Amino acid sequence: MTVRIDDVAKLAGVSKTTVSRVLNKRGYLSEKTIKKVYDAMEQLNYRPNVIARQLFKQETKMIGLIFPTLANPFFGQMASVISERLFEKGYRVLVGDALNDPNIERKYLQDLLAHQVDGLIVGSHNTGISEYDNSNMPIIAIDRRVNNDIPIISSDNYNGGLMATELLIKNGARNIVHTNDPKSLVGPPQNQERKRAYVDSMIEHGLKPIVYSIDPDLSDSKKRKIIMKIFKDNPNIDGMFISNDIDAARVMDIAHNLGYKIPDDLKIVGYDGADVTRVMNPCLTTIVQPIDKMAEATVDMLMKRIKNPTYGHDKILPVKLWAGKSV
Amino acid sequence: MTVRIDDVAKLAGVSKTTVSRVLNKRGYLSEKTIKKVYDAMEQLNYRPNVIARQLFKQETKMIGLIFPTLANPFFGQMASVISERLFEKGYRVLVGDALNDPNIERKYLQDLLAHQVDGLIVGSHNTGISEYDNSNMPIIAIDRRVNNDIPIISSDNYNGGLMATELLIKNGARNIVHTNDPKSLVGPPQNQERKRAYVDSMIEHGLKPIVYSIDPDLSDSKKRKIIMKIFKDNPNIDGMFISNDIDAARVMDIAHNLGYKIPDDLKIVGYDGADVTRVMNPCLTTIVQPIDKMAEATVDMLMKRIKNPTYGHDKILPVKLWAGKSV
Repeated sequence: MTVRIDDVAKLAGVSKTTVSRVLNKRGYLSEKTIKKVYDAMEQLNYRPNVIARQLFKQETKMIGLIFPTLANPFFGQMASVISERLFEKGYRVLVGDALNDPNIERKYLQDLLAHQVDGLIVGSHNTGISEYDNSNMPIIAIDRRVNNDIPIISSDNYNGGLMATELLIKNGARNIVHTNDPKSLVGPPQNQERKRAYVDSMIEHGLKPIVYSIDPDLSDSKKRKIIMKIFKDNPNIDGMFISNDIDAARVMDIAHNLGYKIPDDLKIVGYDGADVTRVMNPCLTTIVQPIDKMAEATVDMLMKRIKNPTYGHDKILPVKLWAGKSV
Repeated sequence: MTVRIDDVAKLAGVSKTTVSRVLNKRGYLSEKTIKKVYDAMEQLNYRPNVIARQLFKQETKMIGLIFPTLANPFFGQMASVISERLFEKGYRVLVGDALNDPNIERKYLQDLLAHQVDGLIVGSHNTGISEYDNSNMPIIAIDRRVNNDIPIISSDNYNGGLMATELLIKNGARNIVHTNDPKSLVGPPQNQERKRAYVDSMIEHGLKPIVYSIDPDLSDSKKRKIIMKIFKDNPNIDGMFISNDIDAARVMDIAHNLGYKIPDDLKIVGYDGADVTRVMNPCLTTIVQPIDKMAEATVDMLMKRIKNPTYGHDKILPVKLWAGKSV
């Protein structure tokens, strides 16, 4: 026998409308009422037919999330906070892990649009995916310019780059190398703002900017080869500003094996500062992005944009320094 | 004007059946055909009405994933590989980040059941959630006993615990403390197998087992207080087997601040060995779980269980040692 909403209402001692409001998480409901309804649903093993309801309501209460990879703690923490906040607001998260690959990102995007999610959050760094332009979908981008219509939530990349470079110079480094994603990979400019700040700061101090690209897509061993090349090319190197903490940890490891004393011979500043990263490697001095606050701002703006498709503006949140022991 | 499947078929120069097979990812299709159909869909901005199709087919092509927290690289990497493999098979992933909280896990579970996912993967450690028992849903558990019907994919926790303890003893440690999750939090026994191996090994060597619990739910500062207490309680401590790498990194940090030389005064072995963790903190000697292989085995078994609800058996994969510099 199929259990129906009437059966739940009867057992819980509330009206059908109340059960429906609980299911749709709409309007004010006391904890007690919610509990009564859920208890009745549990007792009857009632499963509301969400999909049929969605067809009727023209909303799916699902949000798509496209990130480069959840294996990076920066995105793992971001996804964790975003899904928590969305869950509180009655939304579910469909996750696409784009593996830093534009082809996979395009497939996820087509797929999420086909599932008719109510909105999208995009945090990957691939460019040239035209589906974003004509999706008619509320979208928020994290740290990335998708197109001029889509608002960006980011932290202050320029100031972060400035803080990192000035710290290295203040502590005596002169031959400072910066690494970043290759330019072609990132939607202009966001992430590259760190590079711009580094170059500006170096030139202002009469120092020569030296920039290397490390493609986030590469294997661990290929990334290590590039880092080895940096040390070979720059025998006088005494400072490094590395645009993400995982690469910065690779640099620390290799520098250590090459016999550099950190921070005496070589000073290193990373970027991102996820909670787990700072626990795993507390010695790494890094620029901390406000990941939780960025996640919350993203969810807030997406909620407003779902209600009003013309709402939205770029939002830049402040960064701070984690003083480890690598400078 | 609404774009229809006929329009896509006409533009792509294929039959309606072929378009349908591309959409459903069924049967053999050449890369060329797939590309033609996707190009036509893109040109026409066609969005297949997946939800309507799902109602008809009685499947959603969605898999629910309930993990304690994606902010932990072990689960981040696991979720990344699982969603990649499921995507290849035409499934999407709905993620629930349970924040180590049984109440949140229950809500996610009720919610995922309501969305009528085709299957569930559960990796969280909460117990006593009765909804799992009568869900009529294909479920695979990772490293956790949900009930006797649900197969578990895990790595060899007993052997991992043995390897860690024997390594510490072989290198001269005698006063060895083990930390693990509190027993009440974990479904018996899995994770606790590491503790059992530690206790067996200590007793076999005529040494006294000393076990502390660290609740994964606690804040960073509360975890640090417990670790400080361990050092205070055990002034002769010379070895520690810590049941996850994040706590092991906390222990290393605190030991360092207290003036212990690692590994001379104190030897430490962690557990999990996610890729990112080993890059972030290569010095930490740890037992490596085969995360990618576990993820693949989980997806394989779930696919079989969706086809045949009686299929399934526990699967235990081998662990290995990462020789850092902390032993």
